[in-house]
Amino acid sequence: MNTANTAFILIASILVLFMTPGLAFFYGGLVSRRNVVNTMLSVFFICGIAILMWVAVGYELSFHSDIGGFIGTVQHFFLAQVKLDKTLANGLPTGVYLLFQMMFAIITPALFVGAVVGRIRFKFLLWFIILWSILVYYPMVHMVWSANGLLANLGIIDFAGGTVVHINAGITAFVLSAFLGRRHNYGQAIQHYNLPWVLLGTTILWIGWYGFNAGSALAINSVALQAALTTTVATATGMIAWMTVDIFMLGRPTLVGVCTGTLCGLVGITPAAGYVTLTGAFWIGILAVAASYTFITVLKPRIGVDDALDAFGCHGVSGIMGSIVTGLFATKSVNAKIPENGLFYGGGFKLLGMQLLGTVLTIIFVAVMCVVLISLLRLVVPMRVAAAEEDLGLDQGEHGESVDYLVKNDRDFRNYRAEFKGQMARLQHHHK
Amino acid sequence: MNTANTAFILIASILVLFMTPGLAFFYGGLVSRRNVVNTMLSVFFICGIAILMWVAVGYELSFHSDIGGFIGTVQHFFLAQVKLDKTLANGLPTGVYLLFQMMFAIITPALFVGAVVGRIRFKFLLWFIILWSILVYYPMVHMVWSANGLLANLGIIDFAGGTVVHINAGITAFVLSAFLGRRHNYGQAIQHYNLPWVLLGTTILWIGWYGFNAGSALAINSVALQAALTTTVATATGMIAWMTVDIFMLGRPTLVGVCTGTLCGLVGITPAAGYVTLTGAFWIGILAVAASYTFITVLKPRIGVDDALDAFGCHGVSGIMGSIVTGLFATKSVNAKIPENGLFYGGGFKLLGMQLLGTVLTIIFVAVMCVVLISLLRLVVPMRVAAAEEDLGLDQGEHGESVDYLVKNDRDFRNYRAEFKGQMARLQHHHK
Amino acid sequence: MNTANTAFILIASILVLFMTPGLAFFYGGLVSRRNVVNTMLSVFFICGIAILMWVAVGYELSFHSDIGGFIGTVQHFFLAQVKLDKTLANGLPTGVYLLFQMMFAIITPALFVGAVVGRIRFKFLLWFIILWSILVYYPMVHMVWSANGLLANLGIIDFAGGTVVHINAGITAFVLSAFLGRRHNYGQAIQHYNLPWVLLGTTILWIGWYGFNAGSALAINSVALQAALTTTVATATGMIAWMTVDIFMLGRPTLVGVCTGTLCGLVGITPAAGYVTLTGAFWIGILAVAASYTFITVLKPRIGVDDALDAFGCHGVSGIMGSIVTGLFATKSVNAKIPENGLFYGGGFKLLGMQLLGTVLTIIFVAVMCVVLISLLRLVVPMRVAAAEEDLGLDQGEHGESVDYLVKNDRDFRNYRAEFKGQMARLQHHHK
Repeated sequence: MNTANTAFILIASILVLFMTPGLAFFYGGLVSRRNVVNTMLSVFFICGIAILMWVAVGYELSFHSDIGGFIGTVQHFFLAQVKLDKTLANGLPTGVYLLFQMMFAIITPALFVGAVVGRIRFKFLLWFIILWSILVYYPMVHMVWSANGLLANLGIIDFAGGTVVHINAGITAFVLSAFLGRRHNYGQAIQHYNLPWVLLGTTILWIGWYGFNAGSALAINSVALQAALTTTVATATGMIAWMTVDIFMLGRPTLVGVCTGTLCGLVGITPAAGYVTLTGAFWIGILAVAASYTFITVLKPRIGVDDALDAFGCHGVSGIMGSIVTGLFATKSVNAKIPENGLFYGGGFKLLGMQLLGTVLTIIFVAVMCVVLISLLRLVVPMRVAAAEEDLGLDQGEHGESVDYLVKNDRDFRNYRAEFKGQMARLQHHHK
Repeated sequence: MNTANTAFILIASILVLFMTPGLAFFYGGLVSRRNVVNTMLSVFFICGIAILMWVAVGYELSFHSDIGGFIGTVQHFFLAQVKLDKTLANGLPTGVYLLFQMMFAIITPALFVGAVVGRIRFKFLLWFIILWSILVYYPMVHMVWSANGLLANLGIIDFAGGTVVHINAGITAFVLSAFLGRRHNYGQAIQHYNLPWVLLGTTILWIGWYGFNAGSALAINSVALQAALTTTVATATGMIAWMTVDIFMLGRPTLVGVCTGTLCGLVGITPAAGYVTLTGAFWIGILAVAASYTFITVLKPRIGVDDALDAFGCHGVSGIMGSIVTGLFATKSVNAKIPENGLFYGGGFKLLGMQLLGTVLTIIFVAVMCVVLISLLRLVVPMRVAAAEEDLGLDQGEHGESVDYLVKNDRDFRNYRAEFKGQMARLQHHHK
Repeated sequence: MNTANTAFILIASILVLFMTPGLAFFYGGLVSRRNVVNTMLSVFFICGIAILMWVAVGYELSFHSDIGGFIGTVQHFFLAQVKLDKTLANGLPTGVYLLFQMMFAIITPALFVGAVVGRIRFKFLLWFIILWSILVYYPMVHMVWSANGLLANLGIIDFAGGTVVHINAGITAFVLSAFLGRRHNYGQAIQHYNLPWVLLGTTILWIGWYGFNAGSALAINSVALQAALTTTVATATGMIAWMTVDIFMLGRPTLVGVCTGTLCGLVGITPAAGYVTLTGAFWIGILAVAASYTFITVLKPRIGVDDALDAFGCHGVSGIMGSIVTGLFATKSVNAKIPENGLFYGGGFKLLGMQLLGTVLTIIFVAVMCVVLISLLRLVVPMRVAAAEEDLGLDQGEHGESVDYLVKNDRDFRNYRAEFKGQMARLQHHHK
């Protein structure tokens, strides 16, 4: 066992685990006040489900043996008899590698929760996540990150999860929200529950993302360090780019914009983190924000699919952008292991073509699987809550809980004030 | 100095330190809105007190020399002249070991604050923690974890603090709440201040617990890794088990339930983390939740002791369960250092008997000491706040602070609305 | 590359990055409810700006080559062609050292935001931070921490940033708030937005500070460990000292006081962390709180400068105290690299004199530069928001966002209640 590498990947795993509750806070802060508990719970409980599934069958379906480059096989249910201290590459014991990969199996389904908040039945979400993990997630991991994987063997590169995590979650989010239909109040501005929770979520995601990206070097080495640096630069660029656009378009910077830009930078750099220079990271940050901003403000309203918290607009779109432009910016001067230099580093169109192919194959695979899965599952489990429950809010409807017991300055409260003023005025008028 | 081990334990110490404010958020989110500041402060200030006491006398009372296997001696007040870079086992310098152990001396008293919120005088709590640290905590550490400790020499095993931390804190919580009496509003459902803070606290506790459990291997090695994995599995199991029971009993999953189950899983695995397989961890998660759920929903109301936030119900009960079943699930295949295999691994009843004995001795020792200590201390320092202060809330009463300045949707506010409607109706009636 | 050191400093960098959002929560919890978004955003966006500037020119202006001991030169814009894996002292690659130092360039300007909240124009702040980084921060880093730095070569020692970070930020805060003028509601007690956010911020700052102080050893070694221990002791001392003073002066401990004391302890120990014993750390904690408490409660009201959240009172004053008394408590028994023992360890007045000189030179340099910079900048960019915007709150004024949509229990709400009671009473009186 290489102790420095093992300690580093163990800590990276903890950081990645932290991201999922971070996402719960990010999404929970953005939704309206009657759906906060439901949103946070829908994200957080995935930690439980995905861990148990990963140990039961997920790790082996992803990494053990191979069926046609598409998926693995389960030989040791619940990892019984697996030698957890058997050493893999970089002196990493099997146990720490499976722990690190486990955390990706948690966060990926958590990402698409952002698309369906405020109207999906918890029971549907629960069953969908279980089936989706088996039918979509483990195959994606196997295809991209296992030694025998179809996409890996084509020469497609994905440093920390552009295809497996972000495009995958983004496309799933899009299909889910298309099937689910729009919220009743679609088109109205959401009154975000609480912006500090959005910032806290963004912060935890950023911090955790160092585990995600630098940890994906699977060692503490110069690639891990490069990934940490490019992640930092792309994130800062994404933040400042979105803020700048907000200043020009809205006339003012916004906290929600700054947080969204931060996230787009993080997503965009993920597939490229260990392959590009700092300058490359800067441009990836710019391009990710350009793509996501354009999609969210221009295209999304025309498409009319109600991806409530932009799980597709942020993760899908920035993930697609990042995956493709890895074919432009990747360079062997940063990482000798890549098959070709990117277009901007003299490698020609070969890598770019591969990255385009990988992106398209991922989109098609995930979209088809999700359409089939949702179509079948909703025959058995109703997908959407009743209209009355949606209006009441899913916190009460699905969980019987309230995020707090405060008075909201909503139409109800203002009507009440108006009523008081009105009736007072009328009564006093009578007296005169 | 082994640098990888030292770095790992230093980071583990930071993670464990993070747990105590995590607990402040968990408890603070659960109490009613007029006791939030008091609850958070009562947990957080322990960081200050326990650190100073640990440096002054606690470390040496726990680990330096020996008096009858029961407690150590203070040779170097405030650790003056202690060689902090002297190397111990695993190439760990004394300084990092005492830092790691310090964090346990902080979190343990913080746990029992959950039992006494809403009615204990801050001054009593302050003095109780000081005296309890000396009379209960340092002896427990010495007996279980020092080379000469009574319980350690009996062959009782406790990987990361089932007896020292959880049973200890749980029993103390129970005795404190029995002496303190019930809150005025005992039996009424608390309107939790804010559920996102509960989730944040749970999250930080989980993250920090990797430092607690994996760090207890005192090295980055296969035992640390096993502890990280079993912790993950037991926690996920606890979360999903509680959620499942909630779905069957209440008809719906709840965020508070999911968080409580998470915590019970973490507590249950603590004494066993470095001794059991992943399957063992799964069953420990199930058993911990079974025990805590049954206690909290069935037994506690009959006993009638007002353990406000289930410090005993969660830490005490799951800690007892975990400590005992370590005698079932521990196996030398995971950790060659244990004296016997557990019952399920062919070791017979010997280890189980030892674990039962250790649990019973801990319960008796802690209960007796707490009864004596509280009985004497409350002769000098009043234990409970005045009735008027309790109704006002301890935030104003003990600290003169408010958690925020918002309007609560409480009886007062609703009465006011009703009064408006009623008086309006009456006045308008007169007009007709 | 030394992998253990590199992993340690990489993780330390992540911890230090976490401090800046931690500061956003700390400050955001303390301000009044209409300025929360502005305060948090003003702190958080610095992450983006300072990272990009650091990569573009900051690192080289701080550390590359030398102009008169005062500042470096930019040879590689955006670090192009810099060998990021070139090994420096302790086997640290350049990349991780520049990442660690980058985090200090973020947090330092973030600190002084606390002085100017509630009235500064975002645009002024943005330009000020850009110019201040170049004209004040990079020179300070170069003078103190580069091999050729003026202050370093005088024999002044600053372990983790007493001069560079805390005195620098504190003096800047003071000058900024003097130029800016007082808030309209100066002298009135602020109704803090929400105290749990203050505690969360304090917590994250404390946790992150281990990266800051222990990481400043630039290796995992006995100095790093000593810094972790002294940081812990000084922080605990600061917390309990402030709490004790509050108990004697106000009759009760307060959460805001406990958090402030914690912070003063952290600031005070920063310049001394790797140079002093645990006993030294205890006294530094006491002295830092004594100085900051006296300044904030006694001197500040007389001076009348409106440093809203005590950025100077806490960071400036405790930083000055810590820097100076490092000349009393530093000892070669802890760190053989220091030029002289402190006064209390037989080194005479030499080191104390140097520390005084370094402190005074830092104050003068920063004050002069800030006065010039602000005087010029405000000719071009207006510094203060309009009076109406200040009263409305900067969340709406600068960002068009609301922290939440709840009803505040403010004068408005209470007037409304009173109006209802009054008009009801009058109407009912008429009826009789």
